Amino acid sequence: MPPPFTLSVSPRLRSTPFHDRVLAAGVQAFTVYNHMLLPTVYESLEADYRHLTERVQLWDVAGERQVEIRGRDALALVEWMTPRDVGRCAVGQCKYAPLADENGGIVNDPLILRLAEDHFWVSVADSDVLLWAKGLAAGRGFDVTVSEPDVSPLALQGPLAGDVAEAAFGAWTRALRFFRFRETEIDGIPVVVARSGWSKQGGFEIYLRDGSLGGALWDRIRDAGARYGIRPGSPNLIERIESRLISYGTDVTLEHDPFEAGLDAFCDLDKPAEYLARDALAARRGRAPARRLERVVIGGERIEPNMAFLPLHAAGRAAGYVTSAAYSPRLERNVALAMVATKREPGALRVTLPDGSEREVAVADENWRVSGGARIGV
Amino acid sequence: MPPPFTLSVSPRLRSTPFHDRVLAAGVQAFTVYNHMLLPTVYESLEADYRHLTERVQLWDVAGERQVEIRGRDALALVEWMTPRDVGRCAVGQCKYAPLADENGGIVNDPLILRLAEDHFWVSVADSDVLLWAKGLAAGRGFDVTVSEPDVSPLALQGPLAGDVAEAAFGAWTRALRFFRFRETEIDGIPVVVARSGWSKQGGFEIYLRDGSLGGALWDRIRDAGARYGIRPGSPNLIERIESRLISYGTDVTLEHDPFEAGLDAFCDLDKPAEYLARDALAARRGRAPARRLERVVIGGERIEPNMAFLPLHAAGRAAGYVTSAAYSPRLERNVALAMVATKREPGALRVTLPDGSEREVAVADENWRVSGGARIGV
Repeated sequence: MPPPFTLSVSPRLRSTPFHDRVLAAGVQAFTVYNHMLLPTVYESLEADYRHLTERVQLWDVAGERQVEIRGRDALALVEWMTPRDVGRCAVGQCKYAPLADENGGIVNDPLILRLAEDHFWVSVADSDVLLWAKGLAAGRGFDVTVSEPDVSPLALQGPLAGDVAEAAFGAWTRALRFFRFRETEIDGIPVVVARSGWSKQGGFEIYLRDGSLGGALWDRIRDAGARYGIRPGSPNLIERIESRLISYGTDVTLEHDPFEAGLDAFCDLDKPAEYLARDALAARRGRAPARRLERVVIGGERIEPNMAFLPLHAAGRAAGYVTSAAYSPRLERNVALAMVATKREPGALRVTLPDGSEREVAVADENWRVSGGARIGV
Repeated sequence: MPPPFTLSVSPRLRSTPFHDRVLAAGVQAFTVYNHMLLPTVYESLEADYRHLTERVQLWDVAGERQVEIRGRDALALVEWMTPRDVGRCAVGQCKYAPLADENGGIVNDPLILRLAEDHFWVSVADSDVLLWAKGLAAGRGFDVTVSEPDVSPLALQGPLAGDVAEAAFGAWTRALRFFRFRETEIDGIPVVVARSGWSKQGGFEIYLRDGSLGGALWDRIRDAGARYGIRPGSPNLIERIESRLISYGTDVTLEHDPFEAGLDAFCDLDKPAEYLARDALAARRGRAPARRLERVVIGGERIEPNMAFLPLHAAGRAAGYVTSAAYSPRLERNVALAMVATKREPGALRVTLPDGSEREVAVADENWRVSGGARIGV
């Protein structure tokens, strides 16, 4: 194990409106996400995981920046960016939508929120979609305004999130459907409350619309959650691997298309609107991709989260790489996501760990069952 | 002082081809730059500064990613991105060129290298220019290929850089003029060697064109530099403030135009080629901007580098903010860059430090002389 890395902080790595609260709550580490500090650990990866899956957490995810697209051609631009049919997204609804370029390469995998017929927020993972959208709009001459508004999300995640949301925002949150949102004010704090979030534990994302009120919003939710055992938390590596939630830049990049990423279900390839990736995706449609993001189980003793890709091989030939790996205390095995070659040599799949040792690997189904489970000792 | 922050490393924060060497050399901290780990400190900020200004250093600056633009419309696209006259850039030459959007806002401040008439590298600071260029090209229908090639720069910086370059690459490097480059191979390692770099101590940038050979290139330069006292180093906050080298994302952002950034000298506003920011910049030309990036001296005792912007005020009214600050051992004062309101209240300019205390501030000239120096005790 290398020693922990120290992060040199400068204003280029932007602080969030919740930064003081996060420090006071004892954050232990950050990553950098959209040029912004994103907390990653409070107690420990495993303790945070257990608490998230049993209780409820408040996350500073302001690093999920919004790309605001407004104006007469707003829908046309958003449609052009994604194979998802955004025309069928109602006002007040969110859609998870891979963005794809003219080669079918994934530019980002945001949630798109429709605030009005001609007003969208593209709530992005870690790449400057702002610049891509601005370039597309300027190049095409679209009549739109593309900007990064003063909007900073908090996430409320965990099985008790509904109780805390009701206590903090009111009983109406109980009736809010999945991937629907409401614009509202809480004690004068302007927010958008959505039923969404980057875990599968259930919960809400609360988009703060005035960065000067971050402390007040944090305190309100924290206080409302006190009797439910709320703690600060963050997107959790173990939970998001178990839930197969993609981290853009790790599991999937511009080099991968939605078929390889396993995001076919979020593409409407025959949607009526024009979109940039149509020809590229049409050409590959219905054919098995050369590689695909899979759940895999890594045999043997517990491994540490990987800091770089881990190479996969079969019969001595390259067969892809593990993108995200962690030990799952619930499943009592090492779970991972991996970009696996679909036409690989027959026989056991193996991974090389950072220390040079090898482990057997088995592709798992959506419930983390492996057919070769006995063989790899899980 | 807050404790040092720990960085959670994942594959999303890409390692460079020199990562093993950087770890072995005892790096103490990193920042994240273009989704990549960028070393920031080896011995200490001040010790690294002294060594850089007296000897010679080898920097892993692979985080300066290249946006490669090739094809029939390559020049037209690059011209469209910047008010700089790239048409006058010869093959084998580099130009520092602010990129600006349709509002005149700065998207990045790269070095542009022209490898052939229709082949450019845009060597970028910390924003995804790749996505902006791809968007512009797709939107406009330009006949170009825009990609991020396997190219990773090392920098060789310091007063003895010429000696090390000669020892490592040959005597021809002595004749290489400022902002000129040559494509070559060293022991089978393909590189571009340019006389450039993000310090004013003189030196070279060596663009490695095969990421699998990072260790070999590092070792060759390190060994050639041994008798000149070479050490690993990194872009140094103190040196770059003294030299007024802008850090995009800290000193200047998309909210600022080239006039405010003081980059007028790198704009050819009447260049023949079409460019996106022409109308926006023409409208503001010849008028004093409302704020401008200035060198400032902060009075009193030594201050620590700022982690966030520090507010400026004059006669109790907001007057801008300090973007980058550090104590200069050479000048024996606190030097800083600040975005200062040009129409501010008369009287002393003051800054509020993170602990709430205040200091006097004076705008300095290009030699760091201040007219009110006596008053602020420097």
